[in-house]
Amino acid sequence: MQPIRNVAIVGAGLVGSGWAIVFARSGATVRVYDAEASIRASVLDRIRDSLADMREVGLVDDVDAIAGRITVADTLGDAVSDADYIQESVFERVDVKTAISLAIDAAMRPDAIVGSSSSGIPASAFTEGCVHRSRFLVSHPVNPPHLVPVVELVPAPWTDPAIVPFLRTEMARFGQVPVVVNREIAGFILNRLQGALLNEAWALFEEGYASAADIDATVAHGLGLRWSFMGPFETIDLNAPGGVADYAQRLGPLYHSVAQDRTEPKPWSEGLVGKVAAERREALPGESLADRRAWRDGRLMRLVAHKQAQKD
Amino acid sequence: MQPIRNVAIVGAGLVGSGWAIVFARSGATVRVYDAEASIRASVLDRIRDSLADMREVGLVDDVDAIAGRITVADTLGDAVSDADYIQESVFERVDVKTAISLAIDAAMRPDAIVGSSSSGIPASAFTEGCVHRSRFLVSHPVNPPHLVPVVELVPAPWTDPAIVPFLRTEMARFGQVPVVVNREIAGFILNRLQGALLNEAWALFEEGYASAADIDATVAHGLGLRWSFMGPFETIDLNAPGGVADYAQRLGPLYHSVAQDRTEPKPWSEGLVGKVAAERREALPGESLADRRAWRDGRLMRLVAHKQAQKD
Repeated sequence: MQPIRNVAIVGAGLVGSGWAIVFARSGATVRVYDAEASIRASVLDRIRDSLADMREVGLVDDVDAIAGRITVADTLGDAVSDADYIQESVFERVDVKTAISLAIDAAMRPDAIVGSSSSGIPASAFTEGCVHRSRFLVSHPVNPPHLVPVVELVPAPWTDPAIVPFLRTEMARFGQVPVVVNREIAGFILNRLQGALLNEAWALFEEGYASAADIDATVAHGLGLRWSFMGPFETIDLNAPGGVADYAQRLGPLYHSVAQDRTEPKPWSEGLVGKVAAERREALPGESLADRRAWRDGRLMRLVAHKQAQKD
Repeated sequence: MQPIRNVAIVGAGLVGSGWAIVFARSGATVRVYDAEASIRASVLDRIRDSLADMREVGLVDDVDAIAGRITVADTLGDAVSDADYIQESVFERVDVKTAISLAIDAAMRPDAIVGSSSSGIPASAFTEGCVHRSRFLVSHPVNPPHLVPVVELVPAPWTDPAIVPFLRTEMARFGQVPVVVNREIAGFILNRLQGALLNEAWALFEEGYASAADIDATVAHGLGLRWSFMGPFETIDLNAPGGVADYAQRLGPLYHSVAQDRTEPKPWSEGLVGKVAAERREALPGESLADRRAWRDGRLMRLVAHKQAQKD
């Protein structure tokens, strides 16, 4: 397969416009399409705003050059017909994903690759009826993809096996950090790891061991620091004199007991969620959520700039 | 209770010497004791080295002034007899913790407070026989405490209830981020959250969904970024238009299914640990562990400096 030069973005909300930046900043030509005319009309301005923010912290140099590689298409066919790679980021519901996949399928080059930004629905749930279904897979980013580099590549059972290693190389070339999920599983890797930690957090809160604020502080000022530059296996590998095997021998029994405490998981009940929501709304009123999201995005951008400035 | 001015450090390995920096940099007078003469002889040099590293990234200004507040005591009694607060950081085994707690108990002021750096053993397991047992609790830091600020305060059933709020205020004054664990539980909050994520990571690896390296990358280049400045509840609170309650409604069922997949937890088996260890040792030979730990500590220090430079 030839390197990806022409990219189509289908669905140009926050995720899709972030993807447009990812591909354009590494030199690809990007055609963006969204079914909403208002989104098509505003997407280039939003992308320019993001690029200007990124330039301020040194994440990009030439905003005009990057933005100049991105154009908006008025029809899906116009966006995807010439694309080597199509990144689909529409609303996450099986019927919506199925409809857009069939529409892409009808307009794409037979040798193009289609990655879906789906964060939980596997590609097998919405690509079975596609003529070119062997060209489809999940390419799940973290939002926003132009700041958080990880992308989970999850093939459907019918995805051409050559696509995963090819896209892994290509995504790395575009500055992302691809990880391969060898076969489909609910939540893929990222959201399963998040879910496991969240489930324990909810249980500890429910049982009265700590406030949501203190559980949050345990991560934000403790556990999460190493995890922003090392994964959980490397963390424990470095945390015992003899490496991960030594660590497992010392602490495996403790962690097994943690799991044994949770063999009858309950759903996050309405009452429980209500208590955490009440604590959160006291700490941050609902009308301040948008401001806090802007704060988060600024912190994230400066953290990414900090990480890029590290020599290794 | 009066603000803490005189601190004793009992056990002066990596954790204890880090604690000495924490208290001395905020102006406290610190007396350090370790049963090993070689550690007593070297601890001030190690502390000066750490302070010099911290000065390089702007975390402290005046190394001499801070180091000047730290002295070494030749006996336990000499270290603790005048202390307002005693931080114990000896080897984590019940018999060792019990013996040192009894020795501290015999030498301390009746109104002093004793915090143990125990990362998993609750204070009730090693302070029951102390005359002043109501003055003991766990003050569990992350290593190294002078860089990672979180400290878990975990009272034993007999800890004076006035101590926890007092020490919370004092630890915050010393620049730490105290969290309160309302009652004892194996692993406290931090290691339970870590364990929950690790257990899912081991299971995903064991079932062949991804390599240890890719699971690590999912955290280090994805999930872990936000968690280095926001906790898990705040993260999901900002990740749905209507906040945490909205998020729980959308994604609660997915996360419940993650938990339902793990209702028969197995210990980390020798065979499984061996496979991850083999992958790790291929990525990082055993003889390079020490170099990689130095890399980690440098990254951690620069991350902490980055975090401190953020305005909020």
